[in-house]
Amino acid sequence: MRRITLLTDFGTRDGFVGAVKGVLASACSTAVVEDIAHDIPPGDVSKAARTVARYWERFPEGTVHLVVVDPGVGTARRGLAVEVRDRFLVAPDNGVLSRVLGGSGPCRCVALGPSALLPPPASRTFHGRDLFAPAAALLASGSPLEALGDSVIDPLLLEEPALVQEGGWMVGEVVEVDRFGNLATNLPPQALRAAGAMEVGRWVVSLLGAYGDAGSGEILALLDSEERVEVAVRDGSAAEVTGCRVGSRVRVRVRAD
Amino acid sequence: MRRITLLTDFGTRDGFVGAVKGVLASACSTAVVEDIAHDIPPGDVSKAARTVARYWERFPEGTVHLVVVDPGVGTARRGLAVEVRDRFLVAPDNGVLSRVLGGSGPCRCVALGPSALLPPPASRTFHGRDLFAPAAALLASGSPLEALGDSVIDPLLLEEPALVQEGGWMVGEVVEVDRFGNLATNLPPQALRAAGAMEVGRWVVSLLGAYGDAGSGEILALLDSEERVEVAVRDGSAAEVTGCRVGSRVRVRVRAD
Amino acid sequence: MRRITLLTDFGTRDGFVGAVKGVLASACSTAVVEDIAHDIPPGDVSKAARTVARYWERFPEGTVHLVVVDPGVGTARRGLAVEVRDRFLVAPDNGVLSRVLGGSGPCRCVALGPSALLPPPASRTFHGRDLFAPAAALLASGSPLEALGDSVIDPLLLEEPALVQEGGWMVGEVVEVDRFGNLATNLPPQALRAAGAMEVGRWVVSLLGAYGDAGSGEILALLDSEERVEVAVRDGSAAEVTGCRVGSRVRVRVRAD
Repeated sequence: MRRITLLTDFGTRDGFVGAVKGVLASACSTAVVEDIAHDIPPGDVSKAARTVARYWERFPEGTVHLVVVDPGVGTARRGLAVEVRDRFLVAPDNGVLSRVLGGSGPCRCVALGPSALLPPPASRTFHGRDLFAPAAALLASGSPLEALGDSVIDPLLLEEPALVQEGGWMVGEVVEVDRFGNLATNLPPQALRAAGAMEVGRWVVSLLGAYGDAGSGEILALLDSEERVEVAVRDGSAAEVTGCRVGSRVRVRVRAD
Repeated sequence: MRRITLLTDFGTRDGFVGAVKGVLASACSTAVVEDIAHDIPPGDVSKAARTVARYWERFPEGTVHLVVVDPGVGTARRGLAVEVRDRFLVAPDNGVLSRVLGGSGPCRCVALGPSALLPPPASRTFHGRDLFAPAAALLASGSPLEALGDSVIDPLLLEEPALVQEGGWMVGEVVEVDRFGNLATNLPPQALRAAGAMEVGRWVVSLLGAYGDAGSGEILALLDSEERVEVAVRDGSAAEVTGCRVGSRVRVRVRAD
Repeated sequence: MRRITLLTDFGTRDGFVGAVKGVLASACSTAVVEDIAHDIPPGDVSKAARTVARYWERFPEGTVHLVVVDPGVGTARRGLAVEVRDRFLVAPDNGVLSRVLGGSGPCRCVALGPSALLPPPASRTFHGRDLFAPAAALLASGSPLEALGDSVIDPLLLEEPALVQEGGWMVGEVVEVDRFGNLATNLPPQALRAAGAMEVGRWVVSLLGAYGDAGSGEILALLDSEERVEVAVRDGSAAEVTGCRVGSRVRVRVRAD
C-alpha cells in the first residue's frame, strides 16, 4: 500500500478530482489516495503553500503528496517532482511548495519533462490529470525521481512578508485566517514571549499565559500548534470580532527588561 | 486493513485534517481512513452527536471512529475512548458521543490519560492531532482500551429537549435540519401513527400514508430512515417553505380513538 | 482491493454518506471507497450526469461506481446496475447515467429487484443506504450483474439541448459552469475550428490559438480537456465576467472558406 495525498482547488462537484483519482488508480493499482482538501480558493497558491506545510511531514516516509493549485496551467511554468526527508511532492513550479523547500534541509528536485515514462500531457488545460497525476503514480510505483525529468536548482519560492521596526514596535501582518477565525501572523514566537503590549488592527490583544485564562469573547494571543503567534477570541472568531484578514497589520512592543 | 473514520469541524482547506491523517498513517501503517465530514459547524457538538448516531454502527466490528468537534480544547475537559458493540470511538468528553452512549447497551469507557503509550499532547490547541489521533491509531493497531487511560463511568451526555403536553396536543421541536431541508423532530413515531392533526411552526402538515401520496410542494410528515418523525416538502425544502429551524415548535394532536 | 467510488448530493455533515460507507465496509470488507463528490446540488440529475462522465472510465476495470442523486426516492423509479467497458455503475434510473449509456458501446443493464441477494430496502427515503450501497457491495464482492435483477433495455436517457441554425450562425447553449467559472457549451469541436466569430450571451469571444495567447481578463474560446468548446476568461471567471449560466445562449458563425 502506497499513500498518495491530494490537495487541489478543483472543488469536487465537477468531477475533476474524480478524474485525477481515476488516473492514479489506473496507473498504480495499490495506491491509496487520501484527500487533503479541494476547496483551496481557486488559484490561491499562497494559501495552498501554507496548507501543505501543515501536513506533508506528518505522513510516513514514502508518501507521495500531489498538489494541484495551478493558475498558470497552459503557460510555460514547469512541473516539479521533489524528494525531501524521504517524502515525495509533485506540483506546479509556482511557489506552492515554498514552505517545504525553504527550510526543510536537503532535497532533490526535477522538472517534469516529456520522457518515455511521462508522455506530453494530452490537454493544455488539465495538467492535474494529464501530467501531475501520472508523475505521482510513477513515484508511488517506485520510479526514481530522476526518471521524471532533469534536475533543477531554482524552484520558485514565495517570499514571506517582512517584519518592520517602528519605534519600539515590531510590525507584522496577518498571514492566514483559519476556519475558526483564528489569525495567524508572521511574528516570531520570541516576540510573544517578550511582548509588553500587542495590537491587531486597532484592537488591543490580551497577553495571557494560556487560552483557558481568557474570558469568553476576549481577544488573546497564543502560540499555535506550529509555534506561530496567533490571535484568537475565546469562544468566538477573531476574524469576525476584529474584522482583520490576510494582510491586516499586527504589532508587538517588546518589554524593556 | 483496519478502518478509522473521521468526523471533524475543521473544514479541509487549512490542512488540519491532513495533519490528523498524517498522524494516523504514521502511527498505524495499515489503517484506511474514511472521511465522514469536516463541515460540522464550528463547535456544534449537538449536531455532531446526531451525525455520529447515523453511521457509527453501520461500520463493521473493529472500526475506530474518531470524532473531533472540540470547542473546549485547552480547557480541562477529558478525552474519551469507548468500546461499544465491538466498535471503538475516540472523542472529547463534551457530549458528542451522547447518542452512542445513551442507549446502545453495555459499553466500556476510559479517560485518555498520559501514559507510556500516549504521551501528553504537544500542543494545547490541537488535540485532534496530538491526542485523539494517536489514541485512535493505538486502538486500530490493537492496543486494548484499558491501555489508554483509567475507566470512567460518567461521560457527559447531552439531554434531548423534552416533550410537553398542552391540551390535547403533544408539543416537541425541530432537532435537526438536513441538507435537503427536511426537519427532524423529537416526536415519537407512535405520535405520528396516532396523529389526527399536526403543525410545524404555523403550518399545517398533511398526514399521508407515504411520500409518494403528497402533491408537489405539499408539506407532509413521515417516518425517516431512522424511525423519527420528520417534516418534508415533496420536491422542495421544508426548511425553506416553513422557515423553521432547529428549536422551532412542532405539535401533534392525537386522535381520540 | 476493490474500488468503489461514491458520488452523491447528500452533503457530508448529516452523516448520510457515513451511513452508506458503513454499509459498503460491512458488506465488502476489502472495498476501498473513493469519494468523488457529495455537493452535487440537491436533486440535480443533469449536473451529476456530466460529472460521472468526467471520471468513470478513468478508473481501472472492475471499479464499481455508485451514484446516488435520487430526487425520485420513494416513487416507482427503478434502480439500475450497469456493466460497460468492464466497469460497473449503480444508480437510480433517472438519467444520471445518460452520458455513460449513450455512446460508450455495448453495455449490460439490470433493474435492481428484490432477490435473495438483495432484499427490499428497509426504508422508503434512503435507498442510497438500503438499496444502492448493498448492490454496489455485491458487485465489488464479485456477484454477477444478473444476480441483481432482470435485464432492461430502456434506461432513461436525458436529451442534450439541440443546436439550431440561424442565418449563418450555429446556436447552442451553456451546458455546465465549473468551479473556475468556465462555461462548457454544446457546440461541436469542429465549430470552433471553423469559427469566424463567436458570442456568448451578448459578449464577443476572442478566437485564439491557445489560452496563453489571451491577455489577462480576455474572454476566449478553447477546447477543454474533454474536447468540448468552452468559454473562459484568462485569470478570471467567465461566469462572473459574462453573467452567463447554464442555458445561456452561445453562437458561432462558421467561416465561408
